[in-house]
Amino acid sequence: MPKEMVLKPIGVVHAGEQGFAVEVFPEYRPALRELGDFSHVHILWWGDQTDTEESRKSLTCNPPYAKEHTTGIFATRSPNRPNPILMTVCLVLDINIERGMIIVPYLDAFDGTQVVDIKAYFPLSDRVRSVSYPKWLSHWPEWMPEKEGEVDFEALGLA
Amino acid sequence: MPKEMVLKPIGVVHAGEQGFAVEVFPEYRPALRELGDFSHVHILWWGDQTDTEESRKSLTCNPPYAKEHTTGIFATRSPNRPNPILMTVCLVLDINIERGMIIVPYLDAFDGTQVVDIKAYFPLSDRVRSVSYPKWLSHWPEWMPEKEGEVDFEALGLA
Repeated sequence: MPKEMVLKPIGVVHAGEQGFAVEVFPEYRPALRELGDFSHVHILWWGDQTDTEESRKSLTCNPPYAKEHTTGIFATRSPNRPNPILMTVCLVLDINIERGMIIVPYLDAFDGTQVVDIKAYFPLSDRVRSVSYPKWLSHWPEWMPEKEGEVDFEALGLA
Repeated sequence: MPKEMVLKPIGVVHAGEQGFAVEVFPEYRPALRELGDFSHVHILWWGDQTDTEESRKSLTCNPPYAKEHTTGIFATRSPNRPNPILMTVCLVLDINIERGMIIVPYLDAFDGTQVVDIKAYFPLSDRVRSVSYPKWLSHWPEWMPEKEGEVDFEALGLA
């Protein structure tokens, strides 16, 4: 029997009118060293605010952007999944290592969400040149938006 | 006090001379529906085979590709981190939903590793157009390699 896979929080999400940030707890701040040399990071967090007995059992869904479509949850980024580890790639606006603050333009997590890992975005491992995705998403942009308003999320069914 | 963050395995890595695959356990196979329409997936797994009391305490390291450099572990993809959730973007060669098998060209996980999540690679959220990374990695390619031999991993200090 393998050891239990138990996560501990390494930080917390701040999301509100003042903006979006990840605050890393004091004991983990040395792990931020040189992260500011990367333009982007993956933030991994625990979706505890949507986590229910029911959400863990989700195997398929009709995503908000394609309601007529039934798709497996591994083919989505739905927060309802067997293990609610959620992940977003974020542009880094600023890092203050002493205060443990990573300022980002946006983060689709609730205020107070527990962060479990931060990983630098390495083009060698994360940036795919030849990519394809389903026909029913073919109207979606091929890149992460860079500027506010660049993508009409409402029109994509994502707002 | 928040609920404990406990993960359960949803599959297992097969890595060996026959190739590389993720086998999804029978109860989770419906969640693979339509995943085959995506060229790439993120595989998230638990690094139990390198997980020790010591590895959890790693906050900085001298990465193999830049030994003279001390960097925070959040600025690396090291398996030694406070929460050993590891992640790789993989090209999908084939998916057999009935057998729960996702065949990939390569996966940097040990045989028998527990898989905890699978997420489709969405260009809108994962593919960064304007990316930057540290000067000491500036000789690294700007993209995930597509063909075997395209990148000399040994020369990059990664082999």
